[in-house]
Amino acid sequence: MSSPGTGGGPSTVTVRGNVFDPDCPTRRLLDRIGTKWTSMVVKVLAEAAPREVRFADLRRRVPGVSHKMLTQTLQSLCRDGLVQRRVEPEVPPRVHYTLTPLGLSLDEPLAAVREWAEHHMGEIDAFTAQQLRARATGTAR
Amino acid sequence: MSSPGTGGGPSTVTVRGNVFDPDCPTRRLLDRIGTKWTSMVVKVLAEAAPREVRFADLRRRVPGVSHKMLTQTLQSLCRDGLVQRRVEPEVPPRVHYTLTPLGLSLDEPLAAVREWAEHHMGEIDAFTAQQLRARATGTAR
Repeated sequence: MSSPGTGGGPSTVTVRGNVFDPDCPTRRLLDRIGTKWTSMVVKVLAEAAPREVRFADLRRRVPGVSHKMLTQTLQSLCRDGLVQRRVEPEVPPRVHYTLTPLGLSLDEPLAAVREWAEHHMGEIDAFTAQQLRARATGTAR
Repeated sequence: MSSPGTGGGPSTVTVRGNVFDPDCPTRRLLDRIGTKWTSMVVKVLAEAAPREVRFADLRRRVPGVSHKMLTQTLQSLCRDGLVQRRVEPEVPPRVHYTLTPLGLSLDEPLAAVREWAEHHMGEIDAFTAQQLRARATGTAR
Protein backbone atom coordinates (compact mmCIF):
# COMPACT_ATOMS: atom_id res chain seq x y z
CA MET A 1 0.00 0.00 0.00
CA SER A 2 1.43 3.35 -1.02
CA SER A 3 0.44 6.55 0.68
CA PRO A 4 -0.01 10.12 -0.54
CA GLY A 5 3.22 11.96 -1.11
CA THR A 6 5.30 8.81 -1.31
CA GLY A 7 4.33 7.57 -4.75
CA GLY A 8 5.73 10.24 -7.03
CA GLY A 9 5.36 9.35 -10.69
CA PRO A 10 3.33 11.10 -13.34
CA SER A 11 0.09 11.26 -11.34
CA THR A 12 1.30 14.10 -9.08
CA VAL A 13 -1.80 15.90 -7.88
CA THR A 14 -1.86 19.66 -8.00
CA VAL A 15 -5.52 20.35 -7.21
CA ARG A 16 -5.85 22.67 -4.24
CA GLY A 17 -8.87 22.49 -1.95
CA ASN A 18 -10.95 25.47 -0.90
CA VAL A 19 -12.72 25.28 2.42
CA PHE A 20 -15.01 28.14 1.40
CA ASP A 21 -16.43 26.06 -1.46
CA PRO A 22 -19.39 24.09 -0.03
CA ASP A 23 -18.78 21.28 -2.53
CA CYS A 24 -15.09 20.88 -1.70
CA PRO A 25 -14.18 17.80 0.36
CA THR A 26 -11.70 19.95 2.32
CA ARG A 27 -14.55 20.83 4.66
CA ARG A 28 -15.10 17.26 5.72
CA LEU A 29 -11.34 16.70 5.93
CA LEU A 30 -11.06 19.70 8.25
CA ASP A 31 -13.66 18.22 10.60
CA ARG A 32 -11.91 14.84 10.57
CA ILE A 33 -8.50 16.24 11.45
CA GLY A 34 -9.91 18.83 13.87
CA THR A 35 -10.95 16.46 16.65
CA LYS A 36 -9.10 16.14 19.93
CA TRP A 37 -8.57 12.43 19.29
CA THR A 38 -6.89 13.01 15.94
CA SER A 39 -4.72 15.68 17.51
CA MET A 40 -3.60 13.37 20.33
CA VAL A 41 -3.09 10.28 18.16
CA VAL A 42 -1.01 12.24 15.64
CA LYS A 43 1.11 13.68 18.48
CA VAL A 44 1.79 10.24 20.02
CA LEU A 45 2.63 8.72 16.63
CA ALA A 46 4.82 11.71 15.66
CA GLU A 47 6.79 11.42 18.90
CA ALA A 48 7.35 7.72 18.30
CA ALA A 49 8.25 8.08 14.59
CA PRO A 50 9.81 6.34 12.79
CA ARG A 51 9.00 3.58 15.30
CA GLU A 52 5.56 1.95 15.12
CA VAL A 53 3.11 2.07 18.01
CA ARG A 54 0.82 -0.80 18.94
CA PHE A 55 -2.91 -0.27 19.43
CA ALA A 56 -2.71 -1.07 23.15
CA ASP A 57 0.16 1.41 23.62
CA LEU A 58 -1.71 4.10 21.74
CA ARG A 59 -4.71 3.57 23.93
CA ARG A 60 -2.58 3.92 27.06
CA ARG A 61 -0.95 7.10 25.78
CA VAL A 62 -4.29 8.73 24.90
CA PRO A 63 -5.96 8.52 28.32
CA GLY A 64 -9.73 8.40 28.27
CA VAL A 65 -10.16 7.30 24.67
CA SER A 66 -12.52 4.36 24.26
CA HIS A 67 -11.58 1.28 22.23
CA LYS A 68 -14.28 2.18 19.71
CA MET A 69 -13.27 5.84 19.38
CA LEU A 70 -9.58 4.99 18.95
CA THR A 71 -10.48 2.38 16.31
CA GLN A 72 -12.61 4.90 14.41
CA THR A 73 -9.94 7.60 14.63
CA LEU A 74 -7.26 5.25 13.31
CA GLN A 75 -9.53 3.95 10.53
CA SER A 76 -10.22 7.50 9.42
CA LEU A 77 -6.50 8.38 9.49
CA CYS A 78 -5.67 5.22 7.49
CA ARG A 79 -8.40 5.97 4.93
CA ASP A 80 -6.92 9.43 4.38
CA GLY A 81 -3.43 7.96 3.98
CA LEU A 82 -2.11 9.70 7.09
CA VAL A 83 -1.47 6.53 9.09
CA GLN A 84 -0.21 3.13 7.97
CA ARG A 85 -1.42 -0.05 9.67
CA ARG A 86 0.59 -3.27 9.87
CA VAL A 87 -0.78 -6.54 11.21
CA GLU A 88 1.50 -9.24 12.58
CA PRO A 89 -0.27 -12.54 12.01
CA GLU A 90 0.05 -13.83 15.55
CA VAL A 91 -2.61 -15.07 17.89
CA PRO A 92 -3.90 -12.64 18.94
CA PRO A 93 -2.76 -10.45 16.00
CA ARG A 94 -0.47 -7.55 16.86
CA VAL A 95 -1.49 -4.36 15.09
CA HIS A 96 1.05 -1.57 14.62
CA TYR A 97 0.56 2.00 13.47
CA THR A 98 2.89 4.65 12.04
CA LEU A 99 2.41 8.05 10.47
CA THR A 100 3.02 8.26 6.74
CA PRO A 101 5.15 11.21 5.56
CA LEU A 102 1.91 13.08 4.90
CA GLY A 103 0.63 12.27 8.40
CA LEU A 104 3.90 13.48 9.88
CA SER A 105 3.49 16.80 8.08
CA LEU A 106 0.16 17.27 9.86
CA ASP A 107 1.80 17.19 13.28
CA GLU A 108 3.10 20.76 13.15
CA PRO A 109 -0.19 22.55 12.29
CA LEU A 110 -2.13 20.40 14.78
CA ALA A 111 0.49 21.14 17.45
CA ALA A 112 -0.01 24.87 16.88
CA VAL A 113 -3.74 24.59 17.66
CA ARG A 114 -3.16 22.22 20.60
CA GLU A 115 -0.57 24.52 22.11
CA TRP A 116 -2.80 27.54 21.63
CA ALA A 117 -5.59 25.67 23.47
CA GLU A 118 -3.32 24.55 26.31
CA HIS A 119 -1.77 27.99 26.64
CA HIS A 120 -5.08 29.88 26.78
CA MET A 121 -7.25 27.34 28.62
CA GLY A 122 -6.84 29.01 32.02
CA GLU A 123 -7.77 32.40 30.60
CA ILE A 124 -10.85 31.04 28.83
CA ASP A 125 -11.92 29.05 31.89
CA ALA A 126 -11.61 32.12 34.12
CA PHE A 127 -13.56 34.21 31.60
CA THR A 128 -16.35 31.64 31.37
CA ALA A 129 -16.58 31.36 35.16
CA GLN A 130 -16.69 35.14 35.48
CA GLN A 131 -19.51 35.37 32.92
CA LEU A 132 -21.48 32.70 34.76
CA ARG A 133 -21.05 34.55 38.07
CA ALA A 134 -22.09 37.83 36.47
CA ARG A 135 -25.16 36.20 34.96
CA ALA A 136 -26.07 34.61 38.30
CA THR A 137 -25.91 37.97 40.07
CA GLY A 138 -27.76 39.71 37.27
CA THR A 139 -24.98 42.10 36.24
CA ALA A 140 -24.63 40.70 32.75
CA ARG A 141 -27.21 40.33 30.04
CA MET B 1 -18.06 42.99 29.02
CA SER B 2 -14.37 42.33 29.22
CA SER B 3 -12.73 39.46 27.41
CA PRO B 4 -9.76 37.25 28.22
CA GLY B 5 -6.43 38.91 27.71
CA THR B 6 -7.84 42.41 27.78
CA GLY B 7 -8.49 42.80 31.50
CA GLY B 8 -4.97 42.77 32.91
CA GLY B 9 -4.92 43.46 36.64
CA PRO B 10 -3.97 41.15 39.46
CA SER B 11 -6.07 38.17 38.31
CA THR B 12 -3.68 37.18 35.50
CA VAL B 13 -4.20 33.48 34.90
CA THR B 14 -1.15 31.29 34.55
CA VAL B 15 -2.76 27.82 34.60
CA ARG B 16 -1.79 25.82 31.54
CA GLY B 17 -4.08 23.16 30.13
CA ASN B 18 -3.02 19.64 29.22
CA VAL B 19 -4.94 17.90 26.49
CA PHE B 20 -3.58 14.52 27.66
CA ASP B 21 -5.32 14.93 31.03
CA PRO B 22 -8.82 13.45 30.61
CA ASP B 23 -10.18 15.87 33.25
CA CYS B 24 -8.73 18.98 31.61
CA PRO B 25 -11.27 21.22 29.82
CA THR B 26 -8.69 21.76 27.04
CA ARG B 27 -10.06 18.63 25.37
CA ARG B 28 -13.52 20.07 24.96
CA LEU B 29 -12.04 23.41 23.90
CA LEU B 30 -10.03 21.64 21.21
CA ASP B 31 -13.18 20.06 19.78
CA ARG B 32 -14.99 23.42 19.83
CA ILE B 33 -12.25 25.27 17.95
CA GLY B 34 -11.49 22.33 15.64
CA THR B 35 -14.64 22.47 13.53
CA LYS B 36 -14.72 23.74 9.96
CA TRP B 37 -17.30 26.36 10.92
CA THR B 38 -15.11 27.83 13.67
CA SER B 39 -12.18 27.86 11.27
CA MET B 40 -14.14 29.71 8.60
CA VAL B 41 -15.86 32.18 10.96
CA VAL B 42 -12.54 33.08 12.60
CA LYS B 43 -10.95 33.61 9.17
CA VAL B 44 -13.75 35.91 7.97
CA LEU B 45 -13.71 37.91 11.22
CA ALA B 46 -9.90 38.11 11.23
CA GLU B 47 -9.87 39.45 7.67
CA ALA B 48 -12.44 42.10 8.58
CA ALA B 49 -10.76 43.10 11.89
CA PRO B 50 -10.90 45.61 13.43
CA ARG B 51 -14.19 46.18 11.61
CA GLU B 52 -17.28 44.35 12.82
CA VAL B 53 -19.20 41.90 10.62
CA ARG B 54 -22.98 41.58 10.66
CA PHE B 55 -24.63 38.19 11.05
CA ALA B 56 -26.09 38.31 7.52
CA ASP B 57 -22.67 39.15 6.04
CA LEU B 58 -21.01 36.34 7.97
CA ARG B 59 -23.59 33.94 6.67
CA ARG B 60 -22.95 35.06 3.09
CA ARG B 61 -19.17 34.73 3.51
CA VAL B 62 -19.41 31.22 4.97
CA PRO B 63 -21.32 29.53 2.12
CA GLY B 64 -23.39 26.55 3.12
CA VAL B 65 -23.62 27.29 6.83
CA SER B 66 -27.16 27.10 8.18
CA HIS B 67 -28.66 29.88 10.30
CA LYS B 68 -28.75 27.52 13.26
CA MET B 69 -25.17 26.30 12.87
CA LEU B 70 -23.79 29.82 12.48
CA THR B 71 -25.73 30.93 15.57
CA GLN B 72 -24.36 28.00 17.60
CA THR B 73 -20.80 28.60 16.37
CA LEU B 74 -20.96 32.29 17.28
CA GLN B 75 -22.54 31.56 20.69
CA SER B 76 -19.75 29.12 21.47
CA LEU B 77 -17.08 31.62 20.38
CA CYS B 78 -18.72 34.35 22.50
CA ARG B 79 -18.93 32.07 25.53
CA ASP B 80 -15.21 31.36 25.24
CA GLY B 81 -14.46 35.09 24.96
CA LEU B 82 -13.10 34.75 21.42
CA VAL B 83 -15.83 36.81 19.75
CA GLN B 84 -17.65 39.91 20.96
CA ARG B 85 -21.29 40.52 20.02
CA ARG B 86 -22.89 43.96 19.76
CA VAL B 87 -26.59 44.52 19.21
CA GLU B 88 -27.90 47.74 17.70
CA PRO B 89 -31.40 48.25 19.09
CA GLU B 90 -33.15 48.78 15.79
CA VAL B 91 -36.15 47.00 14.33
CA PRO B 92 -35.10 44.43 13.32
CA PRO B 93 -32.01 44.55 15.59
CA ARG B 94 -28.63 44.60 13.83
CA VAL B 95 -26.15 42.21 15.38
CA HIS B 96 -22.42 42.75 14.85
CA TYR B 97 -19.49 40.47 15.64
CA THR B 98 -15.76 41.05 16.09
CA LEU B 99 -12.87 38.92 17.28
CA THR B 100 -11.48 39.77 20.68
CA PRO B 101 -7.66 39.99 20.92
CA LEU B 102 -7.69 36.37 22.11
CA GLY B 103 -9.88 35.33 19.16
CA LEU B 104 -7.53 37.12 16.79
CA SER B 105 -4.61 35.13 18.20
CA LEU B 106 -6.44 31.91 17.23
CA ASP B 107 -6.47 32.85 13.56
CA GLU B 108 -2.85 31.89 12.91
CA PRO B 109 -2.93 28.31 14.28
CA LEU B 110 -6.32 27.63 12.64
CA ALA B 111 -4.98 28.99 9.35
CA ALA B 112 -2.07 26.54 9.54
CA VAL B 113 -4.47 23.57 9.73
CA ARG B 114 -6.80 25.01 7.09
CA GLU B 115 -3.93 25.61 4.70
CA TRP B 116 -2.55 22.14 5.31
CA ALA B 117 -5.99 20.69 4.46
CA GLU B 118 -6.41 22.81 1.33
CA HIS B 119 -2.87 22.07 0.18
CA HIS B 120 -3.13 18.28 0.61
CA MET B 121 -6.80 17.73 -0.28
CA GLY B 122 -6.08 16.70 -3.88
CA GLU B 123 -3.45 14.19 -2.75
CA ILE B 124 -5.75 12.69 -0.11
CA ASP B 125 -8.68 12.56 -2.50
CA ALA B 126 -6.58 10.76 -5.14
CA PHE B 127 -5.29 8.32 -2.53
CA THR B 128 -8.79 7.55 -1.27
CA ALA B 129 -10.07 7.00 -4.81
CA GLN B 130 -7.13 4.72 -5.60
CA GLN B 131 -7.81 2.66 -2.47
CA LEU B 132 -11.46 2.31 -3.40
CA ARG B 133 -10.57 1.18 -6.94
CA ALA B 134 -8.04 -1.30 -5.60
CA ARG B 135 -10.62 -2.67 -3.16
CA ALA B 136 -13.21 -2.97 -5.95
CA THR B 137 -10.82 -4.96 -8.15
CA GLY B 138 -9.68 -7.09 -5.22
CA THR B 139 -6.05 -6.05 -5.24
CA ALA B 140 -6.15 -4.54 -1.78
CA ARG B 141 -7.17 -6.14 1.46
